[in-house]
Parts: sequence; C-alpha cells; structure tokens
Amino acid sequence: MHTIRQSGEALATRTVSAGALLDASLAAIDADLARGGSTYTQVDRSAAREAAASSDAFRDRGYVPSALAGVPVSVKDLFDVKGQVTRAGSRILRDAAPAVRDAAAVARLREAGAVFAGRTNMSEFAFSGLGVNPHFGTPLNPVDPTRLAGGSSSGAATSVALGHAAAALGTDTGGSVRIPAAFCGLVGFKPTARRVPLDGIVPLSASFDSIGPIARSVDCCVLVDAIVSGQSLDTAPRALAGLRFGITSDYVSDDLDGTVSTAFNRTIDRLRRAGASVERFAFPELHEVAGRHPLAGITAAQAWAWHREHVARDADAYDPRVLKRLRVGEGRSAADYIDLLAARERFVRDARARLARFDAWLMPTVAIVPPALADVEHDEAFFATNAKVLRNPSVVNFMDGCALTLPCHHEDELPVGLSICGPALADASILAIARSVEALLRTGAPVVPVVPA
Amino acid sequence: MHTIRQSGEALATRTVSAGALLDASLAAIDADLARGGSTYTQVDRSAAREAAASSDAFRDRGYVPSALAGVPVSVKDLFDVKGQVTRAGSRILRDAAPAVRDAAAVARLREAGAVFAGRTNMSEFAFSGLGVNPHFGTPLNPVDPTRLAGGSSSGAATSVALGHAAAALGTDTGGSVRIPAAFCGLVGFKPTARRVPLDGIVPLSASFDSIGPIARSVDCCVLVDAIVSGQSLDTAPRALAGLRFGITSDYVSDDLDGTVSTAFNRTIDRLRRAGASVERFAFPELHEVAGRHPLAGITAAQAWAWHREHVARDADAYDPRVLKRLRVGEGRSAADYIDLLAARERFVRDARARLARFDAWLMPTVAIVPPALADVEHDEAFFATNAKVLRNPSVVNFMDGCALTLPCHHEDELPVGLSICGPALADASILAIARSVEALLRTGAPVVPVVPA
Repeated sequence: MHTIRQSGEALATRTVSAGALLDASLAAIDADLARGGSTYTQVDRSAAREAAASSDAFRDRGYVPSALAGVPVSVKDLFDVKGQVTRAGSRILRDAAPAVRDAAAVARLREAGAVFAGRTNMSEFAFSGLGVNPHFGTPLNPVDPTRLAGGSSSGAATSVALGHAAAALGTDTGGSVRIPAAFCGLVGFKPTARRVPLDGIVPLSASFDSIGPIARSVDCCVLVDAIVSGQSLDTAPRALAGLRFGITSDYVSDDLDGTVSTAFNRTIDRLRRAGASVERFAFPELHEVAGRHPLAGITAAQAWAWHREHVARDADAYDPRVLKRLRVGEGRSAADYIDLLAARERFVRDARARLARFDAWLMPTVAIVPPALADVEHDEAFFATNAKVLRNPSVVNFMDGCALTLPCHHEDELPVGLSICGPALADASILAIARSVEALLRTGAPVVPVVPA
Repeated sequence: MHTIRQSGEALATRTVSAGALLDASLAAIDADLARGGSTYTQVDRSAAREAAASSDAFRDRGYVPSALAGVPVSVKDLFDVKGQVTRAGSRILRDAAPAVRDAAAVARLREAGAVFAGRTNMSEFAFSGLGVNPHFGTPLNPVDPTRLAGGSSSGAATSVALGHAAAALGTDTGGSVRIPAAFCGLVGFKPTARRVPLDGIVPLSASFDSIGPIARSVDCCVLVDAIVSGQSLDTAPRALAGLRFGITSDYVSDDLDGTVSTAFNRTIDRLRRAGASVERFAFPELHEVAGRHPLAGITAAQAWAWHREHVARDADAYDPRVLKRLRVGEGRSAADYIDLLAARERFVRDARARLARFDAWLMPTVAIVPPALADVEHDEAFFATNAKVLRNPSVVNFMDGCALTLPCHHEDELPVGLSICGPALADASILAIARSVEALLRTGAPVVPVVPA
C-alpha cells in the first residue's frame, strides 16, 4: 500500500483493480490477525469485496468519482457505518442496533468511492491518548511492538502503517489523530473542527471533537480532507524561504524526551537553512489551559453528560481507567462548566492574537516517544503518561485550531512528529506549508513552487 | 411625544428642535418624579441637553444621520453608556466603575443621533417579569397605577407610556420587552437574538438574551431595530387576505384571564374577517419547555455563573426574590446543563417544523392582565404570578425566535397584547405582518399594500 495518488494511478492505468487492492489489504489484515494484532474491532470482508467489485465495474463504465475511488480506507470504530454496530471500542454498546445510516463523513467517503477495509480499534470511547484497550486488545507500534501505537485512533494508525489502508479516518478531541500518527511515523491532520460534520459519530466532546485522516503523506491527507469536508482547498506548496514560523518555550516545550527535542531542534535548523524564519515567542496563556481553568474539564463534563446513563446501568463494562476519567465530569457544576467555556473562548482569542504574526506555529506533536506497553501497566504511570501525551496536541483543540503532524525523526530514531499548527480555518495554509516541510524533510531540498511566491 | 416618524417630521420641518423635544421630555420626567414615579435609575440631564444641542447643530449643517436624529430615547439600566455606572437595577454594582465605552446597541443609537433621556428602571438584573424593584422603586402602570407595569424592562415601558421617550431600548430574555409593552398598551419587539449584538450589557442568559425596542407603533420598532441591528429589513405591510396564522391550545392557552381570552378571540375573528386564515395546530413539545426539561434552567445556570462571586461577597444586597431565583442555578450540574442545551436545540428544531406552514404564530403575549401590586406582596403569589407572566413569551426565547406584541384590547379593557411570533430570522416577515395587523386593529380596515401580494 502506497499513497492514495499512487494507488489511484495504478487503478487508472489498470495496473491493478480495486478488487486486487482490497485482496492485498485483506491479506495484510489476516496476516496481522494471525500475529495477534488488534487493529480492528470488525472487518466486514463481504461488504468490502462488494464495494471493490462495484468500484471496478463503475470504473469500467468510466465513472471514477474521486481520487479515492477503489482505494481501501479504514474507519475508526466510533463512526456509524450503515448496517454495522458502532461500538466505539467499548462493550457498552454491544447490544446497540446497527446504524441505519452512515455518519456524514463516512457517507462522503462512500460517495467518493472509497472501499472500507474495516472498523479500527481505539481507546474506549476515544477517552485516552495511548490507545490501550482492554476489550479488543491494544494495537502495538509497528515500529517497535513493545511500544504503544498511541491513541485514541490507535488502529487507524496501525491500519495505515501495516499497509491495510491508504488512509484511515480518525477523530481528534485532544490529539487522537496526531498522537498515533506521530507514534507510528505517519502523517495526521486535525482540521478546524467545524469543517467536517460530526453527525453520526459517538461524541466525546462537542466542543473539541474533529474528524481527520491518518495517512502516508500530506497529499493523502489533503485528498481525504477534501472529501470529508466537502471543500477543495488551495494547498499548493509554498516556498519555505520567507515563511515565518513561531516556536514557544511555554508549556509545550517542558520536559521533552531527548529524542523529541533533538529531532525537533534539528528540524528547526533545517527550516532555517531553507530560508524560513523561526522566532521564539511568548505564549503565557498556554499555562491557563492547565492551570486555573483546565479546559479538559469541558471534555469531562460533556462526556459525563453523554455517558452517565450508561454508567448508571453498566459501569462494570467500562475500562476502569476510562470510567475514572469520565467520573471527573460527574461532580462538575453548571457554573464551573460555563466559566470553562468562557475561558475557552478567551483562549481562542488569545491564541489567534499570539499567532497572528506567524505563518504557522511549530511544536513537537508529543512530548515523548512512544512509551512501552509495560511502562503504563500501573494506573499511576498510565494516567501520568496519558496526560503528558495529550498535553501538546490538546492545545490545538483548545484554541479551535488545525494542525498537521509529519515525521521528523531519522530512521535510527524512534518516531517523532513535528506539528504545524494554525488557528481556526487556517487549514489551507497549514496544509500548503506542510507539503513544503514534508518535501524538505524527505528530500533535503526545499520545494520550488510552480508559481513563485 | 408621538411616534418617531412624527417627531422626525416635526424636526425636519423645524416645527420643533431636538432641544425643545428634550425639554418636553425632561419636563414629563420631572412631573413623574414629583409624583413619586420610579421610571429611572438615573437621568443625566446635562449629557442629554448636550446631545440635543449638538443634534440641532448638526441638522442646521444638513447632517441628519437617521430617523432617530434628535429624538429622545430611553435606555434600560443594564446597557453600558460611556461615562455612566451600569447598575442593572441593583445595589450590587453600586461601586462599579463608569463604563468606558457604550454597549454596541447604544453606540449605534448614539451614531444614529438619538438623545438619551435616561437609564430606565428594571427588575433587578432583569431576573423577573413583573418589574418589582425594592431598590429603585417599582414602576407602576400608567393605565392603572394600582397595577404593575411589567418587567423586566418596566421603566422602559413607562418611559414611553408617560411620554418621556419616543422609544425605549430594552432586553428580552423570557419576555422582558414584550410583557411591559403588553401591560402598558404599547408595541414591543423581541428580535431574533443574534441580530443585535449583546456586547456591553449585563447578561442574564447568553442563550436567551435579546435586545429590542418598546414604542408606540410597529413602525417605531422597525426604525429602532434597523439601527441597533444594523440591518434594513423589508417590512412593507402584507395583505392580510391569504395570510396563514397558527394558534395552538397547547400550553400558551391554558388558564387565560377572561379579559385576555376575550380580546385574543375577538382579534382572531377580526383577522379571519379580514381574509386571513387562522388554523389551530398541535404543538405538544411546548409542554417539554415546562416539563421534563424546563429550559428556564439554562437561564438559572448561566445567571448563577455570572452572579456567584457577587453572591459570595454581597448576598444581602440582592432583592431576596432575585437571589432565590439565582440560587436555583447553584445546584445545577454540568451534565444537566448540557442536557438542557441539547433539549433546547431539539425544541428549536421542533418549533421550526411546527411553524413551517404558517406565516406567523399568534398567542396572547401574557396569560393575564397586569396584576395589582398588592397582589404580589407575598412571595408565594409573587413567584406564581411571575411564572405565569413569563410562561407565554419565554417560549419564543426558547425557540430562538422573534415576536412582536401589539395592543389588542378595547379602550374600556385592561391592556392585552397580541403576540405575532416566528422562528429564528423571520424578523422581516413578522414586522411586515405586524404592520398590517396593527393597521387593522387601529382602523378597522385591512391595509392595502402598495404592491399587491
């Protein structure tokens, strides 16, 4: 499995059929299952084969609805897919009725001709950043199977890394697309939340949920985003020379792993050598997101509102760690919650002001490299590591922004993600810059745009 | 004091100057004060005189910024007016600093050339529908001074009814513009909330607060609305023949005073005789607003979030009845609040569906005629009467709609308001229909539009 565009070209030239692409995908899935992998909660092989066959038939008649036509794509377990039970990585919804219609984003992928490879495993109800799941197994990191793949979209990342899918549809409430992408050496894009409709997903937080892809390249992310958002953005690469990047020592630079800071600083150097300016800036409001007004309390309250009836009926069926995090929302008062929403609005404004003079804000996607599964066995370590993993990416959800993570480590290093971040609706610009940064990091030579800037 | 347009014509023809209009206004204010009236919390005579003089000077030089130029307008005590302390009818804010800038709506009135007659009295913090105020006195009903003027924009209504102002700027969270307008025999307009910016007011509920005028005619309301919303709507009267009105027996028709039902039914008959259709429809979701999900809980939670620090410091300075209503929000959980917001969204959708086949929904603005002050002396009667007064108009805030109340009683009856209601952003249509209904009720002959429909 390569990029969407490579698959699309192979399909267009009849080098391969959608059926054959899917067969390869299913073979890789079966090989992973045989090894005890836990990338999926469910794989509907016959529905996938039917979709692939119908894609081939459409292509024979000249109908190719999009760049994703006939391309295997995985879907996180919290999206409704017509006819399937949406379990969100949990046992709580095991008796739920099959979805009567696709989630909005899934429907758009289906109309675009994507072939659904399977429902990907995840942190239960998307409520942790490590991808640990006691019900369906914990997806392990293809780079080093003693380590975690990250979460909550854990199976989404491994489905791409293991060659099952050209792209994975995930959700990101505090980093759930970007963390597993970074941990698995992939590209992950968290769009501005409002750009992709949230209808038909099991929600975690109405304030912070967003829907985005994990894939092998920025271009793949652009293609998926165009379909699920319904928006064609101008993402033509921009000359790095002259771009203004901001970095901050506040909050997101605290206590970085050595590997992370080495890779991040090296990347900053390369960007500077390519002619970009990288300026350090103060962003003291970042401490507010963890200080007097910890904005994650918004998620806890919203999640508790959704879950409390299930908890009343079926508490023992929850992952105890998820249940513990859910119960944080139980005691929250309406007035505190209203104050948090107001603090969030202030933070959105403050962030926009802080970032106004930059083309993008750069940060390490995650403060640490993928932790070993053995290191999060005990609850205390689990919660501390989870908080540390979520710390950086959640800031972008708090500021209602968008961000793309792409690999910035060397082959002999554990995966490290570089996040290119912007405020709300800066998506086109962030994706355009990401194309150029990706080209620089992959080739060593700055991209020259067709039309000079 | 007559309508805005009459004042404007008198000013345009130099029949009167803005200074003379204001003098008449101030004389009426002083006469009311001498009688023990409590329409105002503050009257800044010198600032008003300065504004009137400058309006006259501008007019002499040919600058007449709007139909309101030189016309006296009153402003409810919860709007920031640059240089004045915003007290919101309370002692809580007695030591607050003077406002450094005008509220957005006030700034627009000022730019339009309105002359501010005074800050009008109100229910403390706008948190009741009767207009009782133990700190600044309770404005009494000019029609019958043993009765209440209604609230919360009590002084707003009396400032117009007593001829101090051609229009009053009020706020409406659950009926606070429409109730005093109906009780005082005036016209009151509650626009769709988002149309008029709320910046610079003391909030009661971010979900339900809206800003609208009380005045002598629909036309006056249209003129003020155009200025504070910044939108010129097409409100040309519509032929009544062929219009489809809906009325419902659900909820808003329960337990009406005889005077109210008589006036309402008589008006319905007149509309039918004028060629309009009036159909009864079922609206069972209305019971939800008072049943399992009493949406007023949203206001209580939001008000508590704003007030709780003041309550902690200064509880004894509150009107005990307002404090009691505020404390309803104290025990509210975040999850309940989130559920209420979801119930509210459902109600907005349900209401839009129920009203889709009508040009407007008609209801009695208030279920009762203005109650006697003596009848609400005891807390139990106060709270029961307050709830009953708010019941009908608050439905429009719950549905995110708009509504205009106009008098539909005979001269020998106590005032009764007819509310013409529509869903969000139906403002132009509601105002247009209101022009025609007003013409019918005032003249007995249906209006013939210039351009036949």
